[in-house]
Amino acid sequence: MMLCDIGNTSLHFLDTATDEDFKYRVSEFNPDSIKDEVYYICVEPNLKERLKKLDNWIDISKDIDMKKYYSTMGIDRVVACEGAEYEDCVIIDAGSAITVDVIKGGIFQGGFIYPGIRAMGDAYKNISSALSYEFNFDLDLDRLPKNSQDAISYGFIKTLQSVVLSYNSVIVLTGGDAKLLSRVFKEAKVDERLLFKSMKRLLSL
Amino acid sequence: MMLCDIGNTSLHFLDTATDEDFKYRVSEFNPDSIKDEVYYICVEPNLKERLKKLDNWIDISKDIDMKKYYSTMGIDRVVACEGAEYEDCVIIDAGSAITVDVIKGGIFQGGFIYPGIRAMGDAYKNISSALSYEFNFDLDLDRLPKNSQDAISYGFIKTLQSVVLSYNSVIVLTGGDAKLLSRVFKEAKVDERLLFKSMKRLLSL
Repeated sequence: MMLCDIGNTSLHFLDTATDEDFKYRVSEFNPDSIKDEVYYICVEPNLKERLKKLDNWIDISKDIDMKKYYSTMGIDRVVACEGAEYEDCVIIDAGSAITVDVIKGGIFQGGFIYPGIRAMGDAYKNISSALSYEFNFDLDLDRLPKNSQDAISYGFIKTLQSVVLSYNSVIVLTGGDAKLLSRVFKEAKVDERLLFKSMKRLLSL
Repeated sequence: MMLCDIGNTSLHFLDTATDEDFKYRVSEFNPDSIKDEVYYICVEPNLKERLKKLDNWIDISKDIDMKKYYSTMGIDRVVACEGAEYEDCVIIDAGSAITVDVIKGGIFQGGFIYPGIRAMGDAYKNISSALSYEFNFDLDLDRLPKNSQDAISYGFIKTLQSVVLSYNSVIVLTGGDAKLLSRVFKEAKVDERLLFKSMKRLLSL
């Protein structure tokens, strides 16, 4: 049996028998290639439609009590919140988008969406070739930048960090870029399998 | 005589005789169409090359003492800082990019670059059609969002606001989106002609 978390860019599988995880790109993936039973969540609209027609792909989103959340909230954010292991925490899921959700007393308080590393890099590049730099995640965020690479890195990272730290709560990092962001959120707990753990719990595995 | 501030997207002219200002899009502009003398600054690399060949277009960037800044800093940011009317202030120039520069005791301390409204909207849209919303500038930034439009608006605006307010200084807003951002930075001083005033001073007009 497989678990699968499908984002806008990639599918993240967990084989529950071997406890091994692996990824495919949405753009290169053929769901017919998987014959196992797959319990999944999906935010990517095209693939979502295709999967409805396949009997071995089982959407687990219907098993979740959505009353605590809001109707257009991404199912990955909901499952991350359902999997929270702290009564009070901020969950950052860093993928194509970086989602930030706040839990207090075990209850979802609201959250926001920030562009992911690639989307933000592209945003700068599309403004001007003069802003086409990789982000510097080892930037000293306590100093005002005096070069172009740091000026865009600070623009991307310090802004996000400033809001997240203002919540003054435990930070849990998940998603494909969790490790990169842990260089900025040094006290954060990295849990790359948070969504799988939450899915298992929802399936009583 | 004309003054012209050329950004990545538009040319902003001031006719010094009539004190009227007007704009052209970079993509639609032919510099041969202007016969007047034009004193300009330019960050757009292609147009910059073309203007070098035209005698009536005079680049004023060479008159600025760049030692106080850094070598790859956009000339529009430098001119905005040169025009600062406060010894201590934060200058936000909201155009294709949103640049934020900090002045203390009349001296440039550093600054950062954030994507402009359009670039950031595109960044969200390119991640997913589910994030294709206009930004809500009247959002209550003291509440955590519980709907998709507010979740991206907060992601764009609250992050920027949080860092800017942390400088605890007078805020000066300029650029094409200065008025829109003044709905977020309610105490800010809007000065849409800051760059022209600075250019006039540099030219001793």
